[in-house]
Amino acid sequence: MRYEELTIEGRNAVLEAFRAKRPIDRLFVLDGCQDGPVRSIIREAKKTDAIITFVQKERLDQMSETGKHQGVIAYAAAYEYATIDDMFALAEEKGEPPFFILLDNIEDPHNLGAMIRTANQAGAHGVIIPKRRAVGLTATVAKVSAGAINYVPVAKVTNLANTIDELKERGMWFACADMDGELMYNCNLTGSIGLVIGSEGDGVGRLVKEKCDYITKIPMKGDIDSLNASVAMGILSYEIVRQRMK
Amino acid sequence: MRYEELTIEGRNAVLEAFRAKRPIDRLFVLDGCQDGPVRSIIREAKKTDAIITFVQKERLDQMSETGKHQGVIAYAAAYEYATIDDMFALAEEKGEPPFFILLDNIEDPHNLGAMIRTANQAGAHGVIIPKRRAVGLTATVAKVSAGAINYVPVAKVTNLANTIDELKERGMWFACADMDGELMYNCNLTGSIGLVIGSEGDGVGRLVKEKCDYITKIPMKGDIDSLNASVAMGILSYEIVRQRMK
Repeated sequence: MRYEELTIEGRNAVLEAFRAKRPIDRLFVLDGCQDGPVRSIIREAKKTDAIITFVQKERLDQMSETGKHQGVIAYAAAYEYATIDDMFALAEEKGEPPFFILLDNIEDPHNLGAMIRTANQAGAHGVIIPKRRAVGLTATVAKVSAGAINYVPVAKVTNLANTIDELKERGMWFACADMDGELMYNCNLTGSIGLVIGSEGDGVGRLVKEKCDYITKIPMKGDIDSLNASVAMGILSYEIVRQRMK
Repeated sequence: MRYEELTIEGRNAVLEAFRAKRPIDRLFVLDGCQDGPVRSIIREAKKTDAIITFVQKERLDQMSETGKHQGVIAYAAAYEYATIDDMFALAEEKGEPPFFILLDNIEDPHNLGAMIRTANQAGAHGVIIPKRRAVGLTATVAKVSAGAINYVPVAKVTNLANTIDELKERGMWFACADMDGELMYNCNLTGSIGLVIGSEGDGVGRLVKEKCDYITKIPMKGDIDSLNASVAMGILSYEIVRQRMK
């Protein structure tokens, strides 16, 4: 994986980025802009995973770092994404049963960065994030990960629920964190496991939750609602570490 | 505990704050300023726990929110501090052996806020922070704590090592987190316990570490150096929760 710049602005730069197959997370296009170059960019974008959003000029002006966006701004991933096969390969190389972290709609780059850092220390073989409604591998995520982004494969998938189905066929079990689950100490979290963590606001989505084999919970003794998402992810990941070490 | 404003500027306002015994964490005074009112402020400040720092005009101008600092700016705690006796009282009220979190030089308000949140969920009876080289209960800390600051007593002490000595006399044991410690699963972390967490950069200070009964470590399977401080604090706190539940 290598470091790349974050924001690409202007028609030529954006078109070239798509043609060079750089990993673009999002493309912002001036609403109503229909001329040839912009249509070419949209056509190229549609061949990729990029999310295309049409926005007003004010929004583009705000987002622009150079002031010369010409109606198009692309957000490139700061790091390249891995594939799920990369993760299986890493587990095999280490001679360990696969341990993946699946993040459902984590939007805060600080949380994503901290989770990638924890994933590395807990010995997870990869992190899987959804394409939509989630932060990608931005420069902030890379920084907060404290270098872990260079070691943990991160894959972006279209649909987390479908990915869980596919991984189940490859012999994996899934546990998700939820308040109404079974106490984590009483769940068998060993073997080939995927740990699903939801966002702080919404938790794990219903569809994804239904796919999970275990719904597990952290004991909460406090007066408030929940833990910080990256702290909760750390506690659950290390319960997996503890059970694996026994 | 009640919410208070954060920055107090101007000679009258600062002097009144000290006279009203508001909890002031830090006082910044224009270097070389020696007139009557400023001398009164410094005299009042010396009766309290406030850290007094003499700074250049540029620094005060930068810190000022109103532009009218008149050579003095005070940082009030956003919340009132508790005492260690408050913490013992809370433990007794709950009928539990005391479980305190001691934070050695945590400077990042986000980390402190997240740790107060986790302390509440893990059932800790209080958080102890040092007066110097540490962030206090600022508005950011309060916000990140997600309301936990209203439930967890936070005490500020002059010297963490001395406080550990005093608490040992009251029957407490101390464990600190360090890379060269014993695996946390192999340490007995039950009973009346104080968990000491160091800053990310420096870890737990030497003097404090020497006072601890256990040096305990989180298993690190990764390629990077460490975990985020608040994630590490969460993992260790929940190892205490697990051992207490057995």
